[in-house]
Amino acid sequence: MHRLPRDPFLRSPLRLGNLLRTGRSRCDMENEPASATKDGSLHGYESLHRLLSSELPPHLFQEVSRVLYGCNRGSAVTPVPQTEDLSAAAKEGNFDVQTFEFTADLEQMRAPRNVCVGLIQNAIVLPTTEPFLKQKHAIMERVTSLIESAAKAGVNILCLQEAWTMPFGFCTREKRWCEFAESAEAGESTKLLQGLAQRYNMVIVSPILERDESHGSTIWNTAVVIGNHGNVIGKHRKNHIPRVGDFNESTYYMEGNTGHPVFETEFGKIAVNICYGRHHPMNWQAFGMNGAEIVFNPSATVGDLSEPMWPIEARNAAIANSYFVGAINRVGTEVFPNEFTSGDGKPAHKDFGHFYGSSFVAAPDASCSPSLSRCRDGLLVAKLDLNLCQQLKDKWGFRMTSRIDMYADFFREYVQHDFKPQVIHDSYLDGLPAMNSRTT
Amino acid sequence: MHRLPRDPFLRSPLRLGNLLRTGRSRCDMENEPASATKDGSLHGYESLHRLLSSELPPHLFQEVSRVLYGCNRGSAVTPVPQTEDLSAAAKEGNFDVQTFEFTADLEQMRAPRNVCVGLIQNAIVLPTTEPFLKQKHAIMERVTSLIESAAKAGVNILCLQEAWTMPFGFCTREKRWCEFAESAEAGESTKLLQGLAQRYNMVIVSPILERDESHGSTIWNTAVVIGNHGNVIGKHRKNHIPRVGDFNESTYYMEGNTGHPVFETEFGKIAVNICYGRHHPMNWQAFGMNGAEIVFNPSATVGDLSEPMWPIEARNAAIANSYFVGAINRVGTEVFPNEFTSGDGKPAHKDFGHFYGSSFVAAPDASCSPSLSRCRDGLLVAKLDLNLCQQLKDKWGFRMTSRIDMYADFFREYVQHDFKPQVIHDSYLDGLPAMNSRTT
Repeated sequence: MHRLPRDPFLRSPLRLGNLLRTGRSRCDMENEPASATKDGSLHGYESLHRLLSSELPPHLFQEVSRVLYGCNRGSAVTPVPQTEDLSAAAKEGNFDVQTFEFTADLEQMRAPRNVCVGLIQNAIVLPTTEPFLKQKHAIMERVTSLIESAAKAGVNILCLQEAWTMPFGFCTREKRWCEFAESAEAGESTKLLQGLAQRYNMVIVSPILERDESHGSTIWNTAVVIGNHGNVIGKHRKNHIPRVGDFNESTYYMEGNTGHPVFETEFGKIAVNICYGRHHPMNWQAFGMNGAEIVFNPSATVGDLSEPMWPIEARNAAIANSYFVGAINRVGTEVFPNEFTSGDGKPAHKDFGHFYGSSFVAAPDASCSPSLSRCRDGLLVAKLDLNLCQQLKDKWGFRMTSRIDMYADFFREYVQHDFKPQVIHDSYLDGLPAMNSRTT
Repeated sequence: MHRLPRDPFLRSPLRLGNLLRTGRSRCDMENEPASATKDGSLHGYESLHRLLSSELPPHLFQEVSRVLYGCNRGSAVTPVPQTEDLSAAAKEGNFDVQTFEFTADLEQMRAPRNVCVGLIQNAIVLPTTEPFLKQKHAIMERVTSLIESAAKAGVNILCLQEAWTMPFGFCTREKRWCEFAESAEAGESTKLLQGLAQRYNMVIVSPILERDESHGSTIWNTAVVIGNHGNVIGKHRKNHIPRVGDFNESTYYMEGNTGHPVFETEFGKIAVNICYGRHHPMNWQAFGMNGAEIVFNPSATVGDLSEPMWPIEARNAAIANSYFVGAINRVGTEVFPNEFTSGDGKPAHKDFGHFYGSSFVAAPDASCSPSLSRCRDGLLVAKLDLNLCQQLKDKWGFRMTSRIDMYADFFREYVQHDFKPQVIHDSYLDGLPAMNSRTT
């Protein structure tokens, strides 16, 4: 597990980030060698892409990049120039900012459908021991400044990370974190973002802990979709709830009841696959079947648990469903006031592990952007031509070859109590003569 | 597109392979610099893993490996020692051989369930201008020698590549390649493998072009599963048929009619997701729902088309379905007698591109093996403890959180002609006042 140093204040990546030399891709620590075990970096590099591009000769990196990150219309997805304004804000605010462009072929019957998407990843700002309201307001202030930078970059659709207003306290199993829950339609975070959305003409996806007063004050893990006029377009509740090891979010909220809505905004059709839903290929697929062109995956996940899965699942979804995916993970190690155990035989501890950031955008043509920092707040900006979605649908034909009717029948059978899996036994296993296998 | 030199004989990787210095991970060409454009290698490296492990300092490679290849019970999936016998056979036969082990936690209520799996990737042996029977027999001879090596390695379950008895002539749209089709139960290739399966006590999965005499002599893309006693356990027909660009395999055969069978063998429950089916997450899932512990994905796919997808789809399937995947791709550039076009505006040509090999094993814990060579025949041997499948099911809980009933209902609705996608419009798009979005 990647841990930050013992001093609780130094365990905030925001502060550690000050030690990172942001002008270089390798971020050496002062007075001691950079280490993957201390600052959440990869031996001093903020991301895999930066490590590889710095350490490999250019001709080899080009090939490695082609295999690992794919090509968008024949070229690697490379950074596009940022305004001085944006770079200055990133330097001043000590966050990683990266800007990319995904293009599509020009068509004869319709114009390009360009949209600028933004992803924000961030650490909590204050220690979890501070008063809750103070903690929330500090995060809101930080995220507001990041949203202002997104506006500078011309972002049309922005998505924040899962449960962005709070520390990810669900690992503690303490109910007091429920206090961070808000009304999706009228909560403080929604009101804040409505103002920003209107001011910056920006669609904002806001994943929060929701309290639904209309239905017994129940708690949900919800993404609120706010239109670029400041209106609440709607909301979606997390469909699949993790019980991973002893980490059981159903201590707090249950499986969502909002289906697989696609939100038709001025800038494109979007959907939100919240966190653990990324492990469920059908969840991704259902958003695609409802017409999504961009699916955001706001997440909160730690290194030891899921890091090797992270570059795979969102990209697989983008490929299989011919849409863009914006994958977002929070960053930093959150230390909680009281110790808790994790059902793994290890001693009680006060943190869940290092949230490894690494947010990125994946495209339907199997290309993807490099990731944001593994150890600092970040803003990823990607200019997309949404025409790429239909072009890839037409090229690969995954929809027309998907045989949904066959799977509809199969799933209907599967959920019956007397379902018999389609298994063909080797007849030798039953001691029968060869050549006459039977099906159960 | 990675092309081999102009001389048609030099375009066989088998022959080019003789120039590769197999004792070193970097395979320099004689008298000229190695190049990704000539021999199908990555600038002289046979695989991405070899490139990275050679070019990066060990402490950085360790971190890169952790992110890219995952960990199996805390460690990278590393090569295990090979017998001298096997190494000698690989050197003599000029093929890449790699051996790995995936372990599981020890359980108290059942013993480890160890099985040794083998994957074979190979180029065609003779030019496609040779008489068909001669071509087929030359491949059969080569593959027999590779199977003998697999037996030396102690392989229990072996899978060959898609349509292994023939060049992948479907890109030409010429019907004469149908001559390679055989009876699944009684064809020459099946008879050959039945003998080898019995001799070596090995389950063999044999993906061939099938001609079904009982049903109007129709052609299918079929995997025959041969038991370790030499019996034919059963067969599976490719479920999803590609129409990618103008590459349309339904010129030859249609969508399979065998469902998603799992074959219960002496060594474990296996299934076969043939080639293009790897782009369909539900196809992977249905094999898992029927109980597969290992799913093979025998393929034939080329660099420009799919290489960035290759490390993603099989691994995503292994993760999402808590089973092992053996992904196999043929290798080499196959030059056909007559030129053909590819519906892409480019001039007529005689080859489909470079089949990039790169076969590998992916595990349910998100770890995976390094890949076989990108430019030579190869045998990958992986010792698996199948207990890992259930351990990962219990850890991540993807099955119990999968909500199949919800998707069964959704798919049933989707296939109706009057299906209305679940779309929530921003009311501003209709010129309506804000705050009252509507659902269609």
